[in-house]
Amino acid sequence: MTPAAQDVDHVTVALGDRSYEIVIGAGVLADDAFWRGLPSARHALIVTNDTVGPIYAAQLRQRLESTYADVVVVSLPDGESFKDWSTLNRIFDALLGHGCDRKTVLFALGGGVVGDMTGFAAACYMRGVPFVQVPTTLLSQVDSSVGGKTAINHPLGKNMIGAFYQPARVLCDLDTLASLPDRELSAGLAEVIKYGPIADAGLMDWLEEHMEGLRRRETPLLRQVIRRSCEIKAQVVGADEREGGLRAILNFGHTFGHAIEAGLGFGVWLHGEAVAAGMVMAAELSERLGLSPVGLRQRLSDLIARAGLPVRGPRLGAAEYLRHMRVDKKAEGGDIRFVLIEGLGHAVLRSAPDALVAECIDAHCA
Amino acid sequence: MTPAAQDVDHVTVALGDRSYEIVIGAGVLADDAFWRGLPSARHALIVTNDTVGPIYAAQLRQRLESTYADVVVVSLPDGESFKDWSTLNRIFDALLGHGCDRKTVLFALGGGVVGDMTGFAAACYMRGVPFVQVPTTLLSQVDSSVGGKTAINHPLGKNMIGAFYQPARVLCDLDTLASLPDRELSAGLAEVIKYGPIADAGLMDWLEEHMEGLRRRETPLLRQVIRRSCEIKAQVVGADEREGGLRAILNFGHTFGHAIEAGLGFGVWLHGEAVAAGMVMAAELSERLGLSPVGLRQRLSDLIARAGLPVRGPRLGAAEYLRHMRVDKKAEGGDIRFVLIEGLGHAVLRSAPDALVAECIDAHCA
Repeated sequence: MTPAAQDVDHVTVALGDRSYEIVIGAGVLADDAFWRGLPSARHALIVTNDTVGPIYAAQLRQRLESTYADVVVVSLPDGESFKDWSTLNRIFDALLGHGCDRKTVLFALGGGVVGDMTGFAAACYMRGVPFVQVPTTLLSQVDSSVGGKTAINHPLGKNMIGAFYQPARVLCDLDTLASLPDRELSAGLAEVIKYGPIADAGLMDWLEEHMEGLRRRETPLLRQVIRRSCEIKAQVVGADEREGGLRAILNFGHTFGHAIEAGLGFGVWLHGEAVAAGMVMAAELSERLGLSPVGLRQRLSDLIARAGLPVRGPRLGAAEYLRHMRVDKKAEGGDIRFVLIEGLGHAVLRSAPDALVAECIDAHCA
Repeated sequence: MTPAAQDVDHVTVALGDRSYEIVIGAGVLADDAFWRGLPSARHALIVTNDTVGPIYAAQLRQRLESTYADVVVVSLPDGESFKDWSTLNRIFDALLGHGCDRKTVLFALGGGVVGDMTGFAAACYMRGVPFVQVPTTLLSQVDSSVGGKTAINHPLGKNMIGAFYQPARVLCDLDTLASLPDRELSAGLAEVIKYGPIADAGLMDWLEEHMEGLRRRETPLLRQVIRRSCEIKAQVVGADEREGGLRAILNFGHTFGHAIEAGLGFGVWLHGEAVAAGMVMAAELSERLGLSPVGLRQRLSDLIARAGLPVRGPRLGAAEYLRHMRVDKKAEGGDIRFVLIEGLGHAVLRSAPDALVAECIDAHCA
């Protein structure tokens, strides 16, 4: 069960005094070695959800009991639709109810929703306590647990209330992916696929070669693709932590995707599913603007389909898409800004005429 | 109306790339000169309350309309009891309802509650937008508008959910103090008096000489004492922005004071009133521990009384005080940490036996 050192990858997110390590390997949750040197405190609070908690919370508690005298578990309802203030407040209730002081360390055990909410709670509780990411989904291991974006949703927009707040460590146990439903594995692959067009043409080739193996959850392939994803994300975040510019490229497909999520109601489509269809629309827009060579959209669309993901968005009407896209955080003065592909492996941030955007939406709705 | 340059004081809060100016003078709200060079954006949101807004919001809007195409005003109910999530959410509703993007600048026009909530909203909206403090009470001009502590209350504790988030500028118009009720002027004097024991013996002498003039609101005296208070606060915050140690001295009297506010219910006593009675208790504890010479508590108590402030706390029972003090942010592992005076002008952070603390509480309850 215990992984040898050579079976574990380490990726560093270099952010000066906020730098931290991402640890990637099978059996991480079973081995005390990876849980040493965390911030010391009397209290630790494990935040998890009703799906993941019953499987892994006891194991995590075991790892923490040698460091923390008091380990509390709070379990939230599972799903994007609960990523709101009232659910967040359950974390504050637990912290204050247990007399947790401002050295208390929070542990986010779950997927992107748990990670975003735990990170935001850590950013705000007594104006900031340390937290550790323990992502248990592919999506959170390759994307959301890294980089310090934390948030909750507002009825008028996704992730509108949050903070840039870095974790003290990210611990990815590949074994937790065994319990992940196929649909969520695919949703995670959407964020993996994203890194190809925006940053790494070679990754795109590699994914085309190994997509079936990834969907069969072959551990060496998963480990390799999680490490590469984290390397790309760490590099981008290290260069632009607070999204002054470059970091926005990580939102490829997300502007269209957010419109899908908001239009259907948060939680109807998984985030990764919405991003998948959104990437096809964004690639179409890149081609129509003459930025990327004709054919990239088709190649991307084929790969997305092989990942078990939707290549077409829901038919909400282009006007409804545009309405939601205008409240995107990248918008400035009502002007929607898209992440577009300028040749495979290179992304740019651009605005585009509404009529052209509407054509791209209409061309890729089911 | 327009103040000449020599009638305005400037104090710098030196925090590297988060440094900013505090401007102190009469007529600041009437003069465009002080409102140039603010962060540019399409939208500005003035957050105020139902007491201050009707008097000053139109004037502030005039100052901002040359810089911002769209100036929105949101008015919150007045008082500490509204410093909660649901009131904060009205700021987010206004921002999203008006399509405010992530360059939007927030302006806090009011006292400490408006400043704390506006700052926290700015820290969280789209993970951070700029904000400007326009404090209109003595308490906010000498204390809460400076230093970047922002927060809302939780039913189980005051200021438990918040962020360290610095404003882009602080603009104190002395003329706004003319509309301040006497009770609130006195509450502001509590935070002024605080700076003497913890940092400046000379200020204590000066206050003993000028207390009546301050209560008559003589502008030169107010200007002088606001500048000196801001200088002390700027120095402490510049040395310890995130309260790793030194900054905690600014909470002299606040641990007892928070217990009074929480015990009576937020808003029954003004924050400054609770701090006033709390300082007497903390000075008593300093004397009983042999830290400060006998007589300081009496001298401080006399000055507090002359400021029109309570020198005795409400009779909640020492156990009730202690219970609330244990959820203070300075507490560690259930151990309450007090800011105590070690000779006039010098503060230290210490714990103390419960029995002794209880004696100090009982000795100074009405």
